[in-house]
Amino acid sequence: MDKDRIDLKAYIREIADWPKKGILFRDITPLLGEPKAFAAAVEAMSADYIGKGIRYVAGVEARGFIFGTAVAAKLNAGFIPVRKKGKLPYKTESETYDLEYGTSTIEVHRDAAPAGARVLMVDDLLATGGTIEAACRLIEKIGGKIAGIVFLIELAELRGIDKLSGYEVKSLIRY
Amino acid sequence: MDKDRIDLKAYIREIADWPKKGILFRDITPLLGEPKAFAAAVEAMSADYIGKGIRYVAGVEARGFIFGTAVAAKLNAGFIPVRKKGKLPYKTESETYDLEYGTSTIEVHRDAAPAGARVLMVDDLLATGGTIEAACRLIEKIGGKIAGIVFLIELAELRGIDKLSGYEVKSLIRY
Repeated sequence: MDKDRIDLKAYIREIADWPKKGILFRDITPLLGEPKAFAAAVEAMSADYIGKGIRYVAGVEARGFIFGTAVAAKLNAGFIPVRKKGKLPYKTESETYDLEYGTSTIEVHRDAAPAGARVLMVDDLLATGGTIEAACRLIEKIGGKIAGIVFLIELAELRGIDKLSGYEVKSLIRY
Repeated sequence: MDKDRIDLKAYIREIADWPKKGILFRDITPLLGEPKAFAAAVEAMSADYIGKGIRYVAGVEARGFIFGTAVAAKLNAGFIPVRKKGKLPYKTESETYDLEYGTSTIEVHRDAAPAGARVLMVDDLLATGGTIEAACRLIEKIGGKIAGIVFLIELAELRGIDKLSGYEVKSLIRY
């Protein structure tokens, strides 16, 4: 199906001054709620990777799960949940990265991907890029090969893309 | 496709003494990682609701997002994220429920579902049932109608089902 005609941006709601004054937040919930927009987004995020041997899609808790599993289903791939520290029950590897204030740690099961398996990273938003960069390192640490990174939205002025050089990166919507 | 032959239980890993001594944890990550098992689970969770006018699927952060969006895509429905307090940017309704120690609060956007819209609740696990019961109340508070509740796994001995009387409840795997 050709769903390229749907203007996905029309389904993103702008919320002024959230989470704090001066920030214009891009709210994806209207897009999620509209089946044809949601389906078009999943299809467009998957399109370049159909038939490309993607064995897993990985997404970071919590918002990365939203599009991650839907893209995995579309690509007939498995899904790897990357979770916050302490949530995964089996043997894990971890990565710590910087936030605006402090740090955060994410984990993945050590046996989540066999060596050399092609993994597509999926998230709803590329902002400063710290989380997805750490998630890519984590997948590589357990032996996975990053086949690409796909975002619904890229906030281009934050230059998150600079942290992802060497990877194939695609965003459906740019601001 | 008839995928009923796949033994989903074979893809659930048992982890002894996690998150604490005496608990046998059911780890779904091997199922998520195997495309044919993941697809069979999504299909079986969706099967009873195809053509039943499901307008939205709702899932609670974070694990409810995993199967929630994949089932929404299968049913050609929208997805409503139910999130922990403070994560949703627009006007919200909230519900507070009891945990083993203390309480937790979940929220949903007030405009997430128009009055009378049929909503299918999806989660990976029914344990004590507190979270999903609160999520159902929340959807009803904004005007949605609960068409059913579907779980991948039910831990029957915890009697979470008792909190969900009046709802149509289905679990793919019971322990």
